[in-house]
Parts: sequence; C-alpha cells; structure tokens
Amino acid sequence: MVALDRFMRGQVDRFEPEIREMAAYCLDTTGKRLRPTLVFVSGWQGDGVVSDDLVRAAGVVEMVHLATLVHDDIMDRADLRRNRRTASREFGPDAAVLLGDALFSQALHIAALFPTPEVCRLVAESTRRVCSGEIMQTLRRRDINISLAEYRRMIDLKTAELFRVSCFLGARLSGHAADFAAAADRFGHHLGIAYQIYDDLVDFVGEEKHIGKTLGTDLATGKLTLPLMLLLERVPAAERAGIITALRGGQPMPLAASQQRMKDLGIAQEVVRAIDDELAAATGALAPHRALAPVPLMLQLGEMLRGQVAALQTAAATA
Amino acid sequence: MVALDRFMRGQVDRFEPEIREMAAYCLDTTGKRLRPTLVFVSGWQGDGVVSDDLVRAAGVVEMVHLATLVHDDIMDRADLRRNRRTASREFGPDAAVLLGDALFSQALHIAALFPTPEVCRLVAESTRRVCSGEIMQTLRRRDINISLAEYRRMIDLKTAELFRVSCFLGARLSGHAADFAAAADRFGHHLGIAYQIYDDLVDFVGEEKHIGKTLGTDLATGKLTLPLMLLLERVPAAERAGIITALRGGQPMPLAASQQRMKDLGIAQEVVRAIDDELAAATGALAPHRALAPVPLMLQLGEMLRGQVAALQTAAATA
Repeated sequence: MVALDRFMRGQVDRFEPEIREMAAYCLDTTGKRLRPTLVFVSGWQGDGVVSDDLVRAAGVVEMVHLATLVHDDIMDRADLRRNRRTASREFGPDAAVLLGDALFSQALHIAALFPTPEVCRLVAESTRRVCSGEIMQTLRRRDINISLAEYRRMIDLKTAELFRVSCFLGARLSGHAADFAAAADRFGHHLGIAYQIYDDLVDFVGEEKHIGKTLGTDLATGKLTLPLMLLLERVPAAERAGIITALRGGQPMPLAASQQRMKDLGIAQEVVRAIDDELAAATGALAPHRALAPVPLMLQLGEMLRGQVAALQTAAATA
Repeated sequence: MVALDRFMRGQVDRFEPEIREMAAYCLDTTGKRLRPTLVFVSGWQGDGVVSDDLVRAAGVVEMVHLATLVHDDIMDRADLRRNRRTASREFGPDAAVLLGDALFSQALHIAALFPTPEVCRLVAESTRRVCSGEIMQTLRRRDINISLAEYRRMIDLKTAELFRVSCFLGARLSGHAADFAAAADRFGHHLGIAYQIYDDLVDFVGEEKHIGKTLGTDLATGKLTLPLMLLLERVPAAERAGIITALRGGQPMPLAASQQRMKDLGIAQEVVRAIDDELAAATGALAPHRALAPVPLMLQLGEMLRGQVAALQTAAATA
C-alpha cells in the first residue's frame, strides 16, 4: 500500500498543470482501497514481494473507481464522502463531470502502459459495464417494479465487475495459471455482490459518524436496494401503498421510520442471509486452489466482510 | 465512410442490452465526422484501399469525440445539436453523464484491440488532455481576464489535440515513415486550432438553420472566445464595462447587438486572419512531403476550411 501511495501521488504530476490540484484532491483520499487490496491479495507472492505490475494495476482500478465516485456524487447530489466534501460540491457539478472523465482517461492511459493491450482491454470493458450498471440504476430511480434479478444485474455491473477484474488482474499479472485466474475472477464477482448488498444495508442501519458519508441517501434518491425491496414486500398493503406514493413523489418516509420498520420485520437478518450466500460462493470458488499463496489471504478478506456484517447487525439490533 | 458507418452500427451491439438504445442514439449522428476524415485522409493509400486498422482508429476518435459532445451539452445546457435533441435533453443530464462515460470506455476498449498498446496509450492521453481543456474552459466562464495565450491553450487541448492524434494515427497506421507521421501531427494541430477559431466565429456570425445548433451559446454561457475577446478589446471603455457587467451577471448583451458591434469594428476580419495564419502553418508542415499520396488530400481539407471561412465572412458582411 505504501508503493500504491507513492504511485498515486506520482500520478498527480501526469495531469495538466491547470487541473493538477483538482486531480490531487480526488486522488488523495482516505478511502478503503478495496480494489487495490484485491489486486495485491490475489497476486500475493509472499511478504515484501510487490511487483511494479501489481502496483500499476492497483492504481488503475482505484483510479477508475475514484472516477466513478466523482460522477456518482453528482447524480446523488451528495455533499460528503468519507468526511470530506465531494468533488461535485468542491468544484461544482460541471467541472466534476470533466474531472471524472480526466481520471478515467488517465486510468486507461496507465492501463495501456503494460506491454500488451490486454489490461487496457479488460479495464476499458469493465469500465463500460460499470457505467451501464450506473445508468440502469439512474434510470430506474423511484421505480418500484424492479425485480430481484434486475437488482442483482445492476450491482453485478456497477460493483462486482470491478471487484472481479481486480482479482483477475492480480492473479494473472503475478503469473498464476489460467485456472486460478478464473477462480479469482469468480471469487471477486461474488465478493463484489456481497459487498454491495452490505453497503446497501449500511445505508439504512449504519452510523453516520462511523461510515463517514450521509446515510439514507438511497432512500432519499429513490434507489431501490435489497433492504427497501424487502421492506416493500413485507409491510401490509396499505403501508406499502403509502411508502410507494411517498417514494414516487420524491418524499420518502423518514430514515428513522424505515429503520424501525426494518427492525420490526427482521429485514436486516434476511439481507445478511443473502450476503452470506454470496460469501459462501466466493470462498467456494477458491476451494480447488487452497495450496496457492494468495488463497488464505483472499479467504481472510471474505472473513473480514463477514465480521463487518456481524458488527453492523449487532449495532442495528441494540440501537 | 461506408466502412465507418458499418463499424459504428456494429458497435451498438457491444453495449449492454439495457443501454443499447441510448448508445445507438448517440452514435447514429449526421455529424461532420471531421476526425475520422482526418484519419482516412492522413492514411490515404489510394482509391478503394481502406484498411481495417484505419476504420477502427476512425471509429475510436469519433466515439471519443461523441462522448465529449454528450458531456459538453450537459455543461452548456444545450437542447439542440445538429437539429436533434441532445442526449442530455433526451435522457436527462444524470444519465447523459454516465452514457458519455460508457462511450469513452468503449472507445478505449476498441483502441485496446490493436495488437500493441500504442493506440490506446495515445488516445487515452489525448482524451485526458481534451477533458483538461474543457475543465479550464468551464472554470473560467465569465472570466474576462483570460489572455490570448490561455485561450489558445484551451482550444489546443479541447480541439486541436484530437485533430492532431487523428492525423498522427492515420499516417502511422498506414505504415508511413516517422517523419511524415510527425508532420501529419503538426498539420492536425494547426488545422484543429484553425477549426476551433472558425467554430467560435460561427457562434457569433453563423446562421442557425445552416449550422443546426443554437447560436450565441458561447455568449450566453459566458465562454470567452476570440471574437468576444477582440470585441472587448476594441470597444470604448464605457461600453466594455457594460458588456463585462452583463456577462458576469449572467445577462450577456443580446446576440444581435454583439453581431452589429463586431461588424462595426471589423472583428470578423481579424478573426479570419488568425484562422489563415493557422492554416498556413498547417499546410507548411506538409511541404517536405508533397510527394506522398495523403498530402494533396490533406491540403484540400485545409482549402475546404478556408472556403467555409470565406463563405461565412461573405454571409456576415451582407447580413
């Protein structure tokens, strides 16, 4: 991660002088760096062994991710992310659109610095898929007819896609056999789905000071995620109609009220079961490769997410 | 161009089914296709000889350009482009942000299909530079302290960059020697500057029905371009102060009034001189390569722009 820090700081100078400060603002985050972690862990070759290729690939996926966040925060009219003003708030939405574009371009430029075009090909395609997922989500705001399959397709594209490619690149660039790279790919896919469902749950039952971003954003922007979909499914018909009318009118029920109803109906537990299923599929994909160096660390990542989910569940139950 | 049409139509299917219709809307334009023309002309190898590489490169630069238009029209709040609703107007600005991203990504994905990563490297870097130019322009709206050097830097980045890379790729991918590719690069740069100054002039003195886009957009959005910069320089101090106050307050002088004043002060003639200088530099770059097949066609492109400028000047003088 130290090498990645150095790499990301070095990238700032690659932007035109006129936008360097803005690029630095976006790149210098205290973000969780999940995608770089996936690259490093899936390409693990032992303590202290960090190839330049992995650092570069980690930089690419993180920069693509940061670019999508810059654009996401425009859609969501979000002011705060990780306890800091969003780029959209800091520089205005117009500049933020273009700044996100510049970050995308630079990410793909770095991807094209590999000797073969494979990395760039994969990352560009992934980026397109991420955007497609975001478009679907944007167009279907306040649409209460979204099916569970459509929800899964959206989070597959918008989140699991980049998780998947991060794991694949890690495995691939560290010289592992094709079958492990394919297994890492599947692991990343399921972990990504699990993570997004967890993130959607956080938006309802997390604690703002802990998470560092505004809670209830999904509810406020009419994004139908698993917790809300299940809530709509479980409440009595009259209450359901009320929630739908409010959502459609852009006046969702207050966060506290939805939290209380979710608690009454045990929604969190059901969401957690969905997360557990994905985590099981993720770790299952690695079963034939237990002897490989990256696998114990990859399994540990799954455990960490499981731990976070459990902590969230406990907090929600005692709130 | 028939091959390019086929290529662009084929690209629609590469987008996720959920956004295919929107991608098709953006790709199916009656645009001028200047950048593909530059690729084909700079890589000219004789009648009927069109390599797949050139078609693909033409598709890449056009798709990058279309993506920037989608995002530009969001900034400009433009409703109309080439007699059709902009994507921002058709699908909403939020979806248009993401749709532009998907077009960028797909363009870079195609660029990465070349056997070496060089094309992707060049195009990704160019795209970043185009965005930087756009950011500068966006941040400096209504800023009347822009110097001529800064104006040139902005149009170099936002327009000349992609012209330059189109010419370079055309020359390079058709197997010409490095010195011709470098000359084509310089030609593209100066042609791009000339074209953007022409385009900025059109916004003041063109005819809406002829151009197919809303005129006076630069004035309305407070974009300081060469015609307006010269107008501010030439008018008496009191009038200047009035224009500046109006511009800063977001209430620019009416288009008709600015047109009249430009006519009084001979601004168009001065702008045309700047265009001519660039066109001379463009054709000058090709002088050592007159014997090569692409050069006569490239010179012809310069002549065509010169003709358009002359026609605009005549129309403005008789209006």
